[in-house]
Amino acid sequence: MQDEIWENCNLVTLDPAQQAPYGLIADGALAIRDGKITWVGRRSDPACPKDLPRRDGEGFYLTPGFIDCHTHLVYGGNRIDEFEKRQQGMTYAEIARAGGGILSTVRATRDASEQELYDKAATRLRRLTLGGVTSLEIKSGYGLDLENELKMLRVIRKLDSNFPQDIRATFLGAHALPPEYADNRQAYIDLICNDMLPAIARDKLADAVDGFCEIIGFSAREMEKIFETASTLGLDLKLHAEQLSDCRGTELAARHKALSADHLEYVEEGAVKAMSEAGMAAVLLPGAFYFLKEEKKPPIELFRKYGVPMAIATDHNPGSSPCLSLPLMMNMAAILFGLTPEECLRGVTVNAARALGLDDRGTLTVGSTADFALWDIDHPAAFACEFGNLQCRRLVKDGREIPARQDVS
Amino acid sequence: MQDEIWENCNLVTLDPAQQAPYGLIADGALAIRDGKITWVGRRSDPACPKDLPRRDGEGFYLTPGFIDCHTHLVYGGNRIDEFEKRQQGMTYAEIARAGGGILSTVRATRDASEQELYDKAATRLRRLTLGGVTSLEIKSGYGLDLENELKMLRVIRKLDSNFPQDIRATFLGAHALPPEYADNRQAYIDLICNDMLPAIARDKLADAVDGFCEIIGFSAREMEKIFETASTLGLDLKLHAEQLSDCRGTELAARHKALSADHLEYVEEGAVKAMSEAGMAAVLLPGAFYFLKEEKKPPIELFRKYGVPMAIATDHNPGSSPCLSLPLMMNMAAILFGLTPEECLRGVTVNAARALGLDDRGTLTVGSTADFALWDIDHPAAFACEFGNLQCRRLVKDGREIPARQDVS
Repeated sequence: MQDEIWENCNLVTLDPAQQAPYGLIADGALAIRDGKITWVGRRSDPACPKDLPRRDGEGFYLTPGFIDCHTHLVYGGNRIDEFEKRQQGMTYAEIARAGGGILSTVRATRDASEQELYDKAATRLRRLTLGGVTSLEIKSGYGLDLENELKMLRVIRKLDSNFPQDIRATFLGAHALPPEYADNRQAYIDLICNDMLPAIARDKLADAVDGFCEIIGFSAREMEKIFETASTLGLDLKLHAEQLSDCRGTELAARHKALSADHLEYVEEGAVKAMSEAGMAAVLLPGAFYFLKEEKKPPIELFRKYGVPMAIATDHNPGSSPCLSLPLMMNMAAILFGLTPEECLRGVTVNAARALGLDDRGTLTVGSTADFALWDIDHPAAFACEFGNLQCRRLVKDGREIPARQDVS
Repeated sequence: MQDEIWENCNLVTLDPAQQAPYGLIADGALAIRDGKITWVGRRSDPACPKDLPRRDGEGFYLTPGFIDCHTHLVYGGNRIDEFEKRQQGMTYAEIARAGGGILSTVRATRDASEQELYDKAATRLRRLTLGGVTSLEIKSGYGLDLENELKMLRVIRKLDSNFPQDIRATFLGAHALPPEYADNRQAYIDLICNDMLPAIARDKLADAVDGFCEIIGFSAREMEKIFETASTLGLDLKLHAEQLSDCRGTELAARHKALSADHLEYVEEGAVKAMSEAGMAAVLLPGAFYFLKEEKKPPIELFRKYGVPMAIATDHNPGSSPCLSLPLMMNMAAILFGLTPEECLRGVTVNAARALGLDDRGTLTVGSTADFALWDIDHPAAFACEFGNLQCRRLVKDGREIPARQDVS
């Protein structure tokens, strides 16, 4: 692909080498070739490449493409009835114990065809794209048997093939105990380790393995068995940890060098230190915190103290975060958790890349993948400040412009 | 204008006569003529008009057009710097006392030309339109002198002329004490009553008069003088009341038969009873509550107890609610204030109409203005449940289809 250069835009590089807040380069220029960034700097710089075909940035702010590093975008049905119950005072845990929650989505997902799941997820992905998303992760975990977990993972791979976005697939068989194993937890763990994981690894249907380590999910001891098997098969690890209580999942994840621990409202200092030593990212999910009306916030000061990179994601799912805007999550991370505007931007770019084990994106630097979004905003802090319908104006993936806005629901 | 009939849609009529939650009519039909609704019912009803030109509702849910009954959409500048300060721990009141807050927007608004103000507000209005808005209110209040208040009101009237939406203009001279009157509050009240209000009434530049009744704004006694003058001139009344403390503004508003009191976090039972007796609406502004990280919620149970209609609005403004999505405000009213999904829908339709003194819109009933929006959702409770980029698919104002989505920032 030919060289070209984007001009007439303010570059939010997030590159510390720029030695400016947000790594900002006012009136910048960004050259690309073969889907990679080949030059970044001021347009007035004598070293700025000349004589390349020009692309007009229209005076917009240009950020790295946003990365939604934790979603459950593929599922059947919806949970509107459950929402109405929650508005009447039932808690998330009570709904789960009453057979609602995740299990109601499991039933609807098992009942849905692969095409139905694909079509619904595609509609959601188009809406997510409005928020400047060029890479994302999608988890399985509503099938909970071999056939339906594979079905979900195939849908994720098909979305990855058909959409310009890069989509990482995460196997979340340990999302909830399926009803048919209600009296035999160990047999389900065995099913995951002996049947599901080998089949998934053989067909390369997932990049990582995740679990819901929680009183209403799986214990750290149960997750350990799954992590050991997954590691043997060469899969990356992630964990839903310390969302509703401290189950010591984060230490487990750190021992196994997981890419990230996610949620983390109840994590304690020792575990944060372990995350730092293991090089893990902390994935903050303010949408679920907000939607579940939680009060205990993740310990932002500890993540700062130990230099644990904070990522931010939508956690899109029908039960606890029916949210489809990453810019809104930046605002909620600022308002609800107290992140600075620059931390918010790093959370959906370079730190989100790290939470997915991707080291070729998330900043505007030479050699990075040419994924970026253009925004008609007044200041890079607008993402953290404004809320409601903040959408990108243009979107570029691997150097090619893609539609930022399609006919979305 | 010719008769026509919308079919193949689920009608969210919000008409109590339908005796169903949300006044829902599945597979409904809605006939219109000359911008008014002429028939509403089931498509299978033998009385359903035949032989009219058909419009295909594509299986979508069709709601009344949404009404944003409290906005400050016209202003100069932005308050990103102030947001960064707030993230560092300063309170809204501290920022106001330090000359920031409203007064920094006053400076930027005075410095802006009428065209600049119009262009910025038009961009915001296009973004607000994504959320199905067919009517809205815009307040002045960042001019705070005769010339600049008139300038703002002319911008609002020009927006009303140029956009398909109906836009009500509210004069908010008593928004903040302008710096040049810092030592002479009474002289500013006199300026409002003796100069501003008569000029505005003469040129019909406003439909209503509002004030910020608060410790950092104006006292109930000061507002009383303004209300008396405004009433004499035939203007409707509204009031920002009990947002940050109980200043007894709501009782004042009730005594003067105001259309609404807005915010109301600190209102007490006696004042709610007075609102009910005066036929007032309570305008809830969850965006400001959220953005200012307030903890005291408006007394929803009292509004229910006394039958005070609850409206919901964005309160869009640069300092305390930089929000441009009415669907997101429905979600926040549910999550933060505990409204039911149906209360949320009434809040942005029929009750918002009432807060503006409009009795011809807000439900799908015969004789109402044919303002409606079509949504690709699974259930009417989706508005309260989902958050982030929830947008209408089609929009109809006065019977004519208008663009739901333009090139927005």
